[in-house]
Amino acid sequence: MKITVIGCGAMGGLYGAYLSQKNDVTVIDVAKDTVDAINRDGIEIVEPDGSSAIYHPRAALTSEGMEPQDLVIIFVKALFTESALSSNARIIGPDTYLMTLQNGGGHETVLGKFADKDHVVIGTTQHNAARLGSGSVRHGGSGKTVIGASGVPAEKLAPIAEALTSCGLEAAVDGNVQRLIWNKLFTNVSASALTALFQMPLGFIANNESAWALCTKLVRETVDVAAAAGFEFDFEQKLAEVRHICEASPEGITSIQADIAAGRRTEVGTISGYVVDCAHKYGIPAPNHEFLVAAIHALEGKALVQREAAATKA
Amino acid sequence: MKITVIGCGAMGGLYGAYLSQKNDVTVIDVAKDTVDAINRDGIEIVEPDGSSAIYHPRAALTSEGMEPQDLVIIFVKALFTESALSSNARIIGPDTYLMTLQNGGGHETVLGKFADKDHVVIGTTQHNAARLGSGSVRHGGSGKTVIGASGVPAEKLAPIAEALTSCGLEAAVDGNVQRLIWNKLFTNVSASALTALFQMPLGFIANNESAWALCTKLVRETVDVAAAAGFEFDFEQKLAEVRHICEASPEGITSIQADIAAGRRTEVGTISGYVVDCAHKYGIPAPNHEFLVAAIHALEGKALVQREAAATKA
Repeated sequence: MKITVIGCGAMGGLYGAYLSQKNDVTVIDVAKDTVDAINRDGIEIVEPDGSSAIYHPRAALTSEGMEPQDLVIIFVKALFTESALSSNARIIGPDTYLMTLQNGGGHETVLGKFADKDHVVIGTTQHNAARLGSGSVRHGGSGKTVIGASGVPAEKLAPIAEALTSCGLEAAVDGNVQRLIWNKLFTNVSASALTALFQMPLGFIANNESAWALCTKLVRETVDVAAAAGFEFDFEQKLAEVRHICEASPEGITSIQADIAAGRRTEVGTISGYVVDCAHKYGIPAPNHEFLVAAIHALEGKALVQREAAATKA
Repeated sequence: MKITVIGCGAMGGLYGAYLSQKNDVTVIDVAKDTVDAINRDGIEIVEPDGSSAIYHPRAALTSEGMEPQDLVIIFVKALFTESALSSNARIIGPDTYLMTLQNGGGHETVLGKFADKDHVVIGTTQHNAARLGSGSVRHGGSGKTVIGASGVPAEKLAPIAEALTSCGLEAAVDGNVQRLIWNKLFTNVSASALTALFQMPLGFIANNESAWALCTKLVRETVDVAAAAGFEFDFEQKLAEVRHICEASPEGITSIQADIAAGRRTEVGTISGYVVDCAHKYGIPAPNHEFLVAAIHALEGKALVQREAAATKA
């Protein structure tokens, strides 16, 4: 298959590298050092057992001169999805499947601006990865990739799942992928979002009485909004899962916490913000999510103010 | 009058010093260096115009050996009110007026455990002051002190107002002092509380769109809860006042913000927490206040965790 991965961070690098074993793969990234490093040295994937291998997808800064692909996978940070797809619309033809495995929800709305509903593929991945440097990725953990689409019968997506599986990315098509997306949201919108607000690791959220009270309210609201969206989850079970994740990684630094600490914009808009959007859509109150989204946007703004103040001083 | 001021921080020091001009005043504080400095050198009040004067109230670590007073003014941090009154119950007799000018609301409930309802005096002050050192206070700004009590006709409190006024602390008795207390709450529970959460000055709250959206919701909830408590305020007017205060002191550091920055416990429980208590009492939703109170308690807990970690390392 002709596959292009847009956004060659940790996860884009991992998928681009693996898929290049049996496909014609291009990775597109706006960082020139990353593109140059990949074209010169390939992508190194350091596996959990310490072994590593080099993969050689093609890398480019833009899709200029390229033709429509069979599959385009978007792996940029969610807030850049729309601009990244705008810049690379030329490789999305009428037969191109446009796929996202990004965290959070509602991505199909943005992707739907660039491809027909029956060519938009959403999904979840249990892989995780961290960037070690330009063209170098540590593969943290593996698991299933599940894909689906509201507008497509499952068998139409089977070739994509096969392409992933045959390259070591075990994948399946699921007719109820939206439920999996909701299922994955719970920890991200509760404990993880609070780690960003308090700039404390996951263990603090479970151990501090007030933080855990907030976490509990956030899980409760998410259960209620998911139910309104048609997905029933058991509150006690989800809360116990979130608590388990906090207790299993008490020193765990989440990506949204790291974004705030580094003064970067976060993906809160498509993670907690997706719960808020759905709450509005279905008329369910979600005041704790609304507070938290606004508070994290305020912290993004704080970083901006502090950078400007530092620049003025310098 | 025999007057004792419990808590000799900035405001307690100011009131104790001024009142000592024409009354038999004792100031009680748990800090030995403060008590020793006052007994040795007096209390220095540095006025806004730069002039300063020394006042000589008696200072003591405890009220041991003292007899019931005509007036006891409690000026400790609100979270220490109950324990401070417990330790000094011996100076509160059946004829003693027990008075608070602390920020926030609901203090009458705690004071009511130590004096009859008709001897509990609540109020507000427009004075502000900052501690410069042991026994030294910078007097920031002046204004009226207004006192009242739910269980007492105004004329019974007139001698207290006169005692204050004759010592340079202009005071009046008001039959509707609870309204003044609510009126003073608005900025404290909205913009000030958010400065603690974001660790940014007042100007940021007005200038950052997301922070201001939260501030607006907090003012809205306070208007609704105050209305349920019987005090009507105009939302647009109160919001404009809060905005004005933020814009007039864009670099202003609030006391709750300083408390969090220094890892101290805050007065959130009797300020924002008072709005939450009243919301519960009257069945009015106040989810933004509830989130903010819990978040500030979590930040207090964060400071504790960080101190413990530092102590373990050392």
